[in-house]
Amino acid sequence: MKTDVVILAAGQGSRMKSALPKVMHRLAGKPMLQHVIDRARALQAEALHVVIGHGGEQVEQAMKGQAVNLVWQHEQLGTGHAVAQAMPQIGNDSIVLILYGDVPLTRPETLQQLTGIASQGDLGLLTVNLEDPAGYGRIIRNAVGDVVAIVEHKEASEQQKLIREVNTGILALPSAALHEWLPRLSANNAQGEYYLTDVIAMAAEEGMRVRAIQPKAEQEVQGVNNRLQLAQLERWFQQQQAEMLMAEGVTLADPARIDVRGVLKTGCDVLIDINAVFEGEVLLGDGVEIGPNCLIRNAVIGAGCRIEANSMIDGATVGDNAQIGPFARLRPGTELAKGGKIGNFVETKKARIGEGSKINHLTYIGDAEIGREVNVGAGTITCNYDGVNKSLTRIGDGAFIGSNSSLVAPVNIGAGATIGAGSTVTKTVTDNQLAVARGKQINLDNWVRPQKKGS
Amino acid sequence: MKTDVVILAAGQGSRMKSALPKVMHRLAGKPMLQHVIDRARALQAEALHVVIGHGGEQVEQAMKGQAVNLVWQHEQLGTGHAVAQAMPQIGNDSIVLILYGDVPLTRPETLQQLTGIASQGDLGLLTVNLEDPAGYGRIIRNAVGDVVAIVEHKEASEQQKLIREVNTGILALPSAALHEWLPRLSANNAQGEYYLTDVIAMAAEEGMRVRAIQPKAEQEVQGVNNRLQLAQLERWFQQQQAEMLMAEGVTLADPARIDVRGVLKTGCDVLIDINAVFEGEVLLGDGVEIGPNCLIRNAVIGAGCRIEANSMIDGATVGDNAQIGPFARLRPGTELAKGGKIGNFVETKKARIGEGSKINHLTYIGDAEIGREVNVGAGTITCNYDGVNKSLTRIGDGAFIGSNSSLVAPVNIGAGATIGAGSTVTKTVTDNQLAVARGKQINLDNWVRPQKKGS
Amino acid sequence: MKTDVVILAAGQGSRMKSALPKVMHRLAGKPMLQHVIDRARALQAEALHVVIGHGGEQVEQAMKGQAVNLVWQHEQLGTGHAVAQAMPQIGNDSIVLILYGDVPLTRPETLQQLTGIASQGDLGLLTVNLEDPAGYGRIIRNAVGDVVAIVEHKEASEQQKLIREVNTGILALPSAALHEWLPRLSANNAQGEYYLTDVIAMAAEEGMRVRAIQPKAEQEVQGVNNRLQLAQLERWFQQQQAEMLMAEGVTLADPARIDVRGVLKTGCDVLIDINAVFEGEVLLGDGVEIGPNCLIRNAVIGAGCRIEANSMIDGATVGDNAQIGPFARLRPGTELAKGGKIGNFVETKKARIGEGSKINHLTYIGDAEIGREVNVGAGTITCNYDGVNKSLTRIGDGAFIGSNSSLVAPVNIGAGATIGAGSTVTKTVTDNQLAVARGKQINLDNWVRPQKKGS
Repeated sequence: MKTDVVILAAGQGSRMKSALPKVMHRLAGKPMLQHVIDRARALQAEALHVVIGHGGEQVEQAMKGQAVNLVWQHEQLGTGHAVAQAMPQIGNDSIVLILYGDVPLTRPETLQQLTGIASQGDLGLLTVNLEDPAGYGRIIRNAVGDVVAIVEHKEASEQQKLIREVNTGILALPSAALHEWLPRLSANNAQGEYYLTDVIAMAAEEGMRVRAIQPKAEQEVQGVNNRLQLAQLERWFQQQQAEMLMAEGVTLADPARIDVRGVLKTGCDVLIDINAVFEGEVLLGDGVEIGPNCLIRNAVIGAGCRIEANSMIDGATVGDNAQIGPFARLRPGTELAKGGKIGNFVETKKARIGEGSKINHLTYIGDAEIGREVNVGAGTITCNYDGVNKSLTRIGDGAFIGSNSSLVAPVNIGAGATIGAGSTVTKTVTDNQLAVARGKQINLDNWVRPQKKGS
Repeated sequence: MKTDVVILAAGQGSRMKSALPKVMHRLAGKPMLQHVIDRARALQAEALHVVIGHGGEQVEQAMKGQAVNLVWQHEQLGTGHAVAQAMPQIGNDSIVLILYGDVPLTRPETLQQLTGIASQGDLGLLTVNLEDPAGYGRIIRNAVGDVVAIVEHKEASEQQKLIREVNTGILALPSAALHEWLPRLSANNAQGEYYLTDVIAMAAEEGMRVRAIQPKAEQEVQGVNNRLQLAQLERWFQQQQAEMLMAEGVTLADPARIDVRGVLKTGCDVLIDINAVFEGEVLLGDGVEIGPNCLIRNAVIGAGCRIEANSMIDGATVGDNAQIGPFARLRPGTELAKGGKIGNFVETKKARIGEGSKINHLTYIGDAEIGREVNVGAGTITCNYDGVNKSLTRIGDGAFIGSNSSLVAPVNIGAGATIGAGSTVTKTVTDNQLAVARGKQINLDNWVRPQKKGS
Repeated sequence: MKTDVVILAAGQGSRMKSALPKVMHRLAGKPMLQHVIDRARALQAEALHVVIGHGGEQVEQAMKGQAVNLVWQHEQLGTGHAVAQAMPQIGNDSIVLILYGDVPLTRPETLQQLTGIASQGDLGLLTVNLEDPAGYGRIIRNAVGDVVAIVEHKEASEQQKLIREVNTGILALPSAALHEWLPRLSANNAQGEYYLTDVIAMAAEEGMRVRAIQPKAEQEVQGVNNRLQLAQLERWFQQQQAEMLMAEGVTLADPARIDVRGVLKTGCDVLIDINAVFEGEVLLGDGVEIGPNCLIRNAVIGAGCRIEANSMIDGATVGDNAQIGPFARLRPGTELAKGGKIGNFVETKKARIGEGSKINHLTYIGDAEIGREVNVGAGTITCNYDGVNKSLTRIGDGAFIGSNSSLVAPVNIGAGATIGAGSTVTKTVTDNQLAVARGKQINLDNWVRPQKKGS
């Protein structure tokens, strides 16, 4: 049966105290709304309808290029009204799953259970048992366990207030019923809003079974209304990810000090020290060791690599058994071949670096092609930018670049060539040549140093 | 009514195992005693009397320039004796609030409640309900809820031991009563000390009401006797600050991994990643994003700035939309104008850097005035120190400094000037000049590299 | 009485999902098995017998040079069978203590209690009271408190299931009894294995008293079967170490953010900021302050030193009152004398650096001997490597090395000598000489910058 997912994302979220619409706030590096969309997509829904309102332009912008159907809710007249805006685009023969852009972490398996119930013609309702249910609508069940009503906290009897099962608002039901019921919702209440929740009573009245399921963890249904709740959910999500990594065989020095904001795939026997941050898509091969305080983003790290403390890798590919850091920074377009080494206070960018080559200290390599077994001395700079254009530096296999050299691109240095320390190389150096470009040393005796001014 | 605050700060704190007097140990970057003083000042007290003893010279030193009245307690004869040392400087018409230099985090609102009670002629006592009250003096109340006695743990009956409300030692009362009662304290007890607590019994005897209030959180009255307690209070304080920041609309990647040791003011939609440390006074403008592991001290960061991972900023002012880091270090006297960029492995100090200028890699800029839209190449060094004097480097608008240049100060480089890579500039370069100061490149064919020694 | 310790280390640990044998996984930087061995050594045992099997070659490799007796268990036929492999090497007059390579953190004091019991001719059994004992063998005691049986969970009556005291498997007993009982174990059970536990019943039958003791903390007997349990035990161990440091008088900014993987000895009034990692043997003198995010390995840091944020020190000796960092990296063989300073983006290796010398910025010093009161300018590089050999740079007292200098080793720079900024020094500079080795500055007027390509 077809599924239409309706995601309510029109709320202001004033307690976030933000210029950003609430659903655009990021959790694990991704807007909350995107979490909801990605999880809904796992259901292979027919269509995703996102109801926008406050800050809707920003949501539109963020949704560009994604197959979602944006629906404007121009007035905020309640959840029932919000869902109604999407209904014209939903047929009579599908099931509708209602989600919320600020409830980002419901598991797809939980959602699947709900749509499964709806595909049997029933209403699937997600409820949760809370330690402290105060303020929430209580779930009233009948003798066979079906839900017959949701009683708001204010209207609950003392007996009903003891019920700890509460409504989450997440539900799925046949679209035909929703088409029939939504127009019958009334705004005759204190807030003057149309409440989606009222369809539960209609279902019960009209003899549709309302079957409730519970999530595996309470956090699956936790909504975010302020930054404290955002942080709490972020921490829970990170803890879940840490536990998954450990279950897959990754050693974490401290499961409370790792952040994965994207997708991290790991080989066998990967070790990750404290405070690692992973962003985007990162692949760590077998036996990779990541030192403390590293930030790795969109990178492929080969088997056996060791990334030492305080390194940053972004948009780079690193071959097997390479060594990086500490204090190294690989920027996008860095391709380090196997057995290569990039050491401390070294920055690379758009640089292909061959097998076994070493760039160990205080160096900037940008826009470069470096062969195999090249040794780049400390303090080497590729002068890739003349103020307007970027140019390429090519260094052949086995070349030796003396320390503190400046390589003024475009420039070619041949295989086996040697550059004397302190040289500024502006012209081609062919294979096996020695190039020296520096001043002659002059020593003066009995030099008198500058004196303290005013003395 | 006038308030005299007496802060007891004479204890040794031997369990701290320290050469520092206990009250000088820092919590959130500030001595505990200073926390007490700052909170007492919020009451606009007539005078602050700090009773010092052990390590008193160090406290005196730290208090220099502050409007506090230091009173020596040369012998440690108990809290009553300590307070008595301050009394000669306190008149008969004020109220006296007794605080402790090792109980740093009582909220001003709590203290205000106590002085409010005392200003009505009663004795205000701060008590707290403990899970485990063992060891503490129990609060005995009468039928109307007033305190009538404090019974020490050792002397408490089994019935009294069940009482969980205990004395904190923090109290306020009219000075006239204290003048009368302190001389009547007796040291006729196991320790041979004069206990301030005994004034509670005197008050009850003489018909002064003793009204007890409780703090909002137990930590407000937690004393520090060892480093574990210090760390626990530090963590609680940091957690409180994290929650305040989030309530104000700051996104924290991990509320358990932020340290604020001073005053942090934030604009709208500030994002702070893991392990940030803020010291002194820091102002972050709207939309500022702080990457992981940054340390920011006494700085003003303009709106829209992005501070990337592992950056340190100290004593700097940064204009709007500037980009800093990763691995950047801005030292005192750095003023980076809007849209400027300071990149990795770059250190700046006493440097004014104009709008849109870029210092992206491996550079030291010290004692410099740099114009707008200047590009400083990788590996550039301002040679500002000749061994005795520091001198200035001036670079005009739109200049281009080639990589690996050494600028030997004092030196002026004109607007639109260009410095060739690898140059050592010792003389003035005027506007639009090109300056090159490096050796000529010589290439030698078939160069034979050094051989392995001994081979 | 002699003690033979038998450590079972033959298990596969398939839930670790690792190519490494389980007991070789590291906790606090050391294989779990090594923790067990080190703790057993504290007992001054006659001999340590390690029973190996799965991945035994790797364990053999790791045990090289250690006085342990490795015993192969070629088939995994249960704990009784494992112990039996070691028995041929154990006489009849010692006591045998059975430990497990994946239960790393039992305190030596606890083990001593067990061997104490065994030396009196009884069987000492380590048991623990668990909140949730499900799955564990329950301890059945008689009227005088001696253990009479261990009932497996599956075979326990409802009454017995209420018992929260369970078996840990750790025990000690006279070797003569073990020699007699092990051959009588039966594999007539579901797993077809020989269970060591069955000796408890034999002891009871034969009238040997079985006396149970409990560990101080549950974690002492916690086994590691997966990476989550490894991480939990790591965190508990680190917390214990943090509490010990605080008890000794160290201030920790956050006890949850320090990792000690080895031995850390501290003087008086040491302050350690967040995220410090200590590895190997580290000694911090009185008053040392360690900034955030530092990694210190095998180092001696003198009194009064200040190590600023993001510094790494490995294999270095640092004299009193030195200042290091931020962003400094001291590699093995660095000896910094008192009052020295190594600043940001500086790397040192095999370098002796004299009193009061300063290397403040962006420098690489490798294979060097530097005198007292030397100033090494920003961007200085010792060119210690010619592609095959490493050579030495010597700098005399009071020398001044201008910024961006390259010192091509082997080279000597005399006392009081001055090197002009931007020089490449290849020849000896004698005392008090000035050496300059750079190109002459040429200025060209009206220089036209490169134009945007294609424009």
